[in-house]
Amino acid sequence: MDNRQFRLAARPVGLPKRSDFELTTTPRPTPSDGEVLVRLAYVSLDPAMRGWMNEGRSYIEAVKLGDVMRAYAVGRVVESRAPGLSEGNYVVGAFGVQEWAAVPAAHANQIDPAIAPLPTWIGGLGVTGMTAYFGLTEIGKPQPGETVLVSAAAGATGSVVGQIATIRGCRAVGIAGGADKCRLLVEELGFAAAIDYKAEEKLAAAIRRECPRGVDVFFDNVGGETLDAALANLARRARVVICGAISQYNSTTPRAPQNYLSLLVHSARMEGFVLFDFRQRYAEAVLALAGWRAEGRLKLFEDIVDGIESFPDALLKLFCGENRGKLMIKIADV
Amino acid sequence: MDNRQFRLAARPVGLPKRSDFELTTTPRPTPSDGEVLVRLAYVSLDPAMRGWMNEGRSYIEAVKLGDVMRAYAVGRVVESRAPGLSEGNYVVGAFGVQEWAAVPAAHANQIDPAIAPLPTWIGGLGVTGMTAYFGLTEIGKPQPGETVLVSAAAGATGSVVGQIATIRGCRAVGIAGGADKCRLLVEELGFAAAIDYKAEEKLAAAIRRECPRGVDVFFDNVGGETLDAALANLARRARVVICGAISQYNSTTPRAPQNYLSLLVHSARMEGFVLFDFRQRYAEAVLALAGWRAEGRLKLFEDIVDGIESFPDALLKLFCGENRGKLMIKIADV
Repeated sequence: MDNRQFRLAARPVGLPKRSDFELTTTPRPTPSDGEVLVRLAYVSLDPAMRGWMNEGRSYIEAVKLGDVMRAYAVGRVVESRAPGLSEGNYVVGAFGVQEWAAVPAAHANQIDPAIAPLPTWIGGLGVTGMTAYFGLTEIGKPQPGETVLVSAAAGATGSVVGQIATIRGCRAVGIAGGADKCRLLVEELGFAAAIDYKAEEKLAAAIRRECPRGVDVFFDNVGGETLDAALANLARRARVVICGAISQYNSTTPRAPQNYLSLLVHSARMEGFVLFDFRQRYAEAVLALAGWRAEGRLKLFEDIVDGIESFPDALLKLFCGENRGKLMIKIADV
Repeated sequence: MDNRQFRLAARPVGLPKRSDFELTTTPRPTPSDGEVLVRLAYVSLDPAMRGWMNEGRSYIEAVKLGDVMRAYAVGRVVESRAPGLSEGNYVVGAFGVQEWAAVPAAHANQIDPAIAPLPTWIGGLGVTGMTAYFGLTEIGKPQPGETVLVSAAAGATGSVVGQIATIRGCRAVGIAGGADKCRLLVEELGFAAAIDYKAEEKLAAAIRRECPRGVDVFFDNVGGETLDAALANLARRARVVICGAISQYNSTTPRAPQNYLSLLVHSARMEGFVLFDFRQRYAEAVLALAGWRAEGRLKLFEDIVDGIESFPDALLKLFCGENRGKLMIKIADV
């Protein structure tokens, strides 16, 4: 049986193009001792993928030219040559954009589809949800009554951040593009207010209007002008969580935060993190997120695109802000 | 007896000019009930003064046009109408650029000239030293063995930061302009290494050379390209202390930190502060600094310019990096 794969063919300049990837077909791999063979069900599309395509020092090695594109995925074990995992187990891991993966058992984490359907395990209960959880609670450290501003608030991570902020007794304010997304935030997800950046002439003024006592925590997924507008509205001792900068990843001339000295005058902090910093505590996050989901306090959305061949186009959708909720590709029924 | 004063006459655009100030002469003030009359001995010149001249929201009210320019100073009480302070006591406070000041006793803090000479009380044992102390220990949180990089390292604050870092068991690396300043850092002040930014083609490469394991704490007084070069060399979980940005205060087109996403990939933090955040703990800082000074482990330098009339020129000297150690004006022998 064949294994279709997307490999990195060129390092993108600006937005990734179809020609930056090559769709290859190789024989289905055979697991070695200690490995399992996984049939992939869903592959996660994440903004971080853009960074992995660049050369240079980062928190994780760049994907090499010619290698299968790195991606989180969920699937089913179809053959096990390792203790601890058996045929029929469901697992998540960095299995790549492909149909089959033979990986060391240590790199495949078992999940329970009775708790949540497979897509949720690479979304709200996966990297996305855990990033929201640790970024907000450990870096943002919100206190009850504080104002938590979130950019890309209708996105996979942002929507979870705002809901956790509300659960923690904060006033969540979301920034999103378009009236539909803003309605979703306030009417479905419990945000106290939403700012449609496409409808506002001055984003900084809109933030001032919706956050009159200043922004205590800004959870930033966007960077660029959005970050500057938030920096102009910090409360004293504010925490700016740098989770991502999707507006900048594809820019060849990134915009730096002009207003960074706002950190000085407000005794504020801007801090980055990567999920891996919290690798000892993943179980804690999944437990909390699954609990809130079961209680109906955390709503999780997936935007599922069909077929491995749609990978390059789906990735563009992500960077154009067209997805609603967690974007992923369905590879196969497993 | 007359009181000469420098008043803010215009809000500077770029570097402050002589004509942004007016030298006025008024009668010597008379203290009211609860006030003391202070004869000023030395007036402190600080980079922060540039910010106080600008309109707009900040951590402290802007100096109003026509008001005496705000400045820290040390002097002697010549008349007291308040309990707790007597004629002959020496005091520090925000007395302004003038020869005499009548101030509420609560705004005049008594100091002991037996511990250190008067100039030191507005330098290494004053706002400058306390800023270095709290900024490094509380915001930078250096651990023994870590690398602490300091910009404007031969300046009033930077030289104290580097020495405290060494006292705390860190490896202090200073950035300064010119071979003389760099020699001072290494030969007199115990820095492990110094980088002469005027002699280096690429500051980021020079930092990499002198901080091969990365920068754990960067104490920034400069901003601009210096900040970007340091951001390009962060160690994991680095702390960037934003104390000031002297390279940018007079710029009408400030340079923002292009490399801020280095915070994300290194799980690092950039944090601002103002000394006032630590107002409950000033005594702790003075005690520590005076102790190190008495033991000969902390060397403090002053650069004293004579006469109140030299104020505008001396202020320019500060922004051109021409001073060695804490810059101040001698007003009178008291």
